[in-house]
Amino acid sequence: MTEPCDLSATETVAAIADGKLTAEAVVRSCLNRIDAREPEVRAWFALDRDLALGQARALDKGPRRGALHGLPIGIKDIVETLDLPTGCGSPIYTGWQSRRDAAVVAICREAGAVILGKTVTTEFASRFPGATRNPHNTAHTPGGSSSGSAAGVADRMVHAAFGTQTGGSIVRPASYCGIVGFKPSHLAIPMAGVKPYAQSLDTLGPMTRTVRDAALVYAVASADPQAAKVEAVKPKRIGLCKSPAWASADAGMQQAFEAGARRLKAAGYTVVDWELPDSMRDILAVHTVIIEWEGLSALAAERVGNLDKLSPIMRETLARAAGHGAAAHQAAIAKAALFRAELDLLFDDIDVIVAPAAPGEAPKGLGSTGEAVFNSPWTLLHVPCLCLPGMRGPTALPISLQAIGKRGDDKRLLAYALALEPVFKG
Amino acid sequence: MTEPCDLSATETVAAIADGKLTAEAVVRSCLNRIDAREPEVRAWFALDRDLALGQARALDKGPRRGALHGLPIGIKDIVETLDLPTGCGSPIYTGWQSRRDAAVVAICREAGAVILGKTVTTEFASRFPGATRNPHNTAHTPGGSSSGSAAGVADRMVHAAFGTQTGGSIVRPASYCGIVGFKPSHLAIPMAGVKPYAQSLDTLGPMTRTVRDAALVYAVASADPQAAKVEAVKPKRIGLCKSPAWASADAGMQQAFEAGARRLKAAGYTVVDWELPDSMRDILAVHTVIIEWEGLSALAAERVGNLDKLSPIMRETLARAAGHGAAAHQAAIAKAALFRAELDLLFDDIDVIVAPAAPGEAPKGLGSTGEAVFNSPWTLLHVPCLCLPGMRGPTALPISLQAIGKRGDDKRLLAYALALEPVFKG
Repeated sequence: MTEPCDLSATETVAAIADGKLTAEAVVRSCLNRIDAREPEVRAWFALDRDLALGQARALDKGPRRGALHGLPIGIKDIVETLDLPTGCGSPIYTGWQSRRDAAVVAICREAGAVILGKTVTTEFASRFPGATRNPHNTAHTPGGSSSGSAAGVADRMVHAAFGTQTGGSIVRPASYCGIVGFKPSHLAIPMAGVKPYAQSLDTLGPMTRTVRDAALVYAVASADPQAAKVEAVKPKRIGLCKSPAWASADAGMQQAFEAGARRLKAAGYTVVDWELPDSMRDILAVHTVIIEWEGLSALAAERVGNLDKLSPIMRETLARAAGHGAAAHQAAIAKAALFRAELDLLFDDIDVIVAPAAPGEAPKGLGSTGEAVFNSPWTLLHVPCLCLPGMRGPTALPISLQAIGKRGDDKRLLAYALALEPVFKG
Repeated sequence: MTEPCDLSATETVAAIADGKLTAEAVVRSCLNRIDAREPEVRAWFALDRDLALGQARALDKGPRRGALHGLPIGIKDIVETLDLPTGCGSPIYTGWQSRRDAAVVAICREAGAVILGKTVTTEFASRFPGATRNPHNTAHTPGGSSSGSAAGVADRMVHAAFGTQTGGSIVRPASYCGIVGFKPSHLAIPMAGVKPYAQSLDTLGPMTRTVRDAALVYAVASADPQAAKVEAVKPKRIGLCKSPAWASADAGMQQAFEAGARRLKAAGYTVVDWELPDSMRDILAVHTVIIEWEGLSALAAERVGNLDKLSPIMRETLARAAGHGAAAHQAAIAKAALFRAELDLLFDDIDVIVAPAAPGEAPKGLGSTGEAVFNSPWTLLHVPCLCLPGMRGPTALPISLQAIGKRGDDKRLLAYALALEPVFKG
């Protein structure tokens, strides 16, 4: 029998609007699923059953608030919430509760969302992992840094969750967990109240089980209601992109990439080989300088006041970052601006790029959340990226490609993704 | 007799390093000045004498920490501090104290600064004024939004303070108060822990009484030690720019602009008339869309939860902002990126731009902090801007031009500003 937690977000808000479901019934269904699965999956950093049910009952009693009325949403735990703690994946923040909602949380509440709980993040959305496991095989990482958001949505504990991406922290865990992860254009969703790591890259985005659901949540979060109404549009020319990190693609991803290309052609799409121009050959190095230098700055208070509470890998990262220097950062910022302008023009020849979403299936073990090399270039370029789930790798774990659109043209990418979604599913 | 509070920041840290002054003596001198002047000027939102003296005594007892050892610094009150409240110029934040320092505060403490107190800001660094008065004539505004930082530094209550600029919030109050205000390139100083207004524009920068002092504080805050060592460099070609808002320049500024040009020529500089290209004719409108749309998003929690505690002018601004829409914001972001790339190339013909820093002298009255029309274009362009004080207007209040450099080339602008500073002083 289909439980409310099994529905898509779009189906759920429609059922509540039609009086077929109450918000309380939806939240209870999610909480039941969490009761059953959380000991295995460990997606949640903070969750208060009474608080969640109270929000749902208040919504059921009042008028319809907006497009997310009654929908439970998970919030990555670097995003401030006024009624739940924010731990940032670090013992430095143990016991901290903000007195305010982050902007994105306030906007979703205003539209009727139930803030179900805070999802596990890696330490400050960087490398050191949290406790979350991949729901498809709990011996494997769910990916990160938006680990709990990916695992919770994939495991049907919650219909939608927010992640953030600075390197590959939305699209990679979405790929590993087999869900849709949408990293919009930079700054499409407001970052106020989100712990920064690298401000010129950090981007909030929805993680959901369908592209339609991503559009629904994105439309609210970006204050662009038209985004919820986009219809599927078939791209005329798809640029198939092995990416600068192709050497890091494992055998599973190499096969998935070929299989994805075959599926696209079989579905009647025009697919051309496409790569980033040679002028961007050092794009991964440029991204590294920016993320590390800005991370070093952004975590100054934690480094100065609580160095001993940072993980060894974070301390290593910060020590390495100090070697870059301000001049290298400014040079990298200038290069990134040129790269972005150059890529804008290249979209004259193709409608959308399709590329690997990760190096392969989710790696075994929980000590690392995997590598962001297939995501960092696109994050640097500020373009919208969306993980298209559906395929499976050699060990039957999810393996995914991503669709990448033009900077600022998030709605068009959603329209293309709606068309491409069924190509990879089933 | 010269009191420690009358020294420049550079002289102060040198005197402490040489054992001629203690940090405690410097802080006591600032506190004495504040005792005498604060009832008139009202520069401070929060100041704890024992806390400030305690920091100074601890520094005097310990080893030299860094380039700011013993230097008192004021912090604009939208910047989080772990030991003083952060009020954001809004009753919504009454009684709030963060549990962490903003990154820039942690970095300055690490370098030995004494965090003297929090300086008055307009409401969320937007238009609604705080209580601060212009120390040159308390019937006049000090400018805003970094009102307390400008007034406190100008009145020798503190040697340096941080401001932030999203429209004209560093350079304009610096101009009105007759001090140096340096808005660096966007993201040169980390914004973690600063309440955002428009994240694609918000920029932290030092406010000081000399260019050398601005370089000293900037070097620490941007983690670029070389910036403290820049020497004066005479620009070969100065572009004298009336700016897109020239029609807003009052008679005093028109005279000051001409006088400034004469002074530059008399000092032997090559000065050419220079204006932003016609392609940027809607630059002020582009800035308005970005600042208003991002401000509406960034203040979502305050708007949703505490609309009645926002000022009428803020409520008006937010209501107008909602009319722009996400598509207009994305279009403005794209235009801004093009403008920035275009301006980069135009610096092939000139070394530095000199333009009005404000429409004129500080306006009479405390109900408005003045207009940012001479600052917003440069903030949008992400270029470094530095207020060059020294001249006086028709009513003997300060009136200033600003020097504007190439994006990312903050050290070069500081070098030019060191050369130009004496042209306008005296």
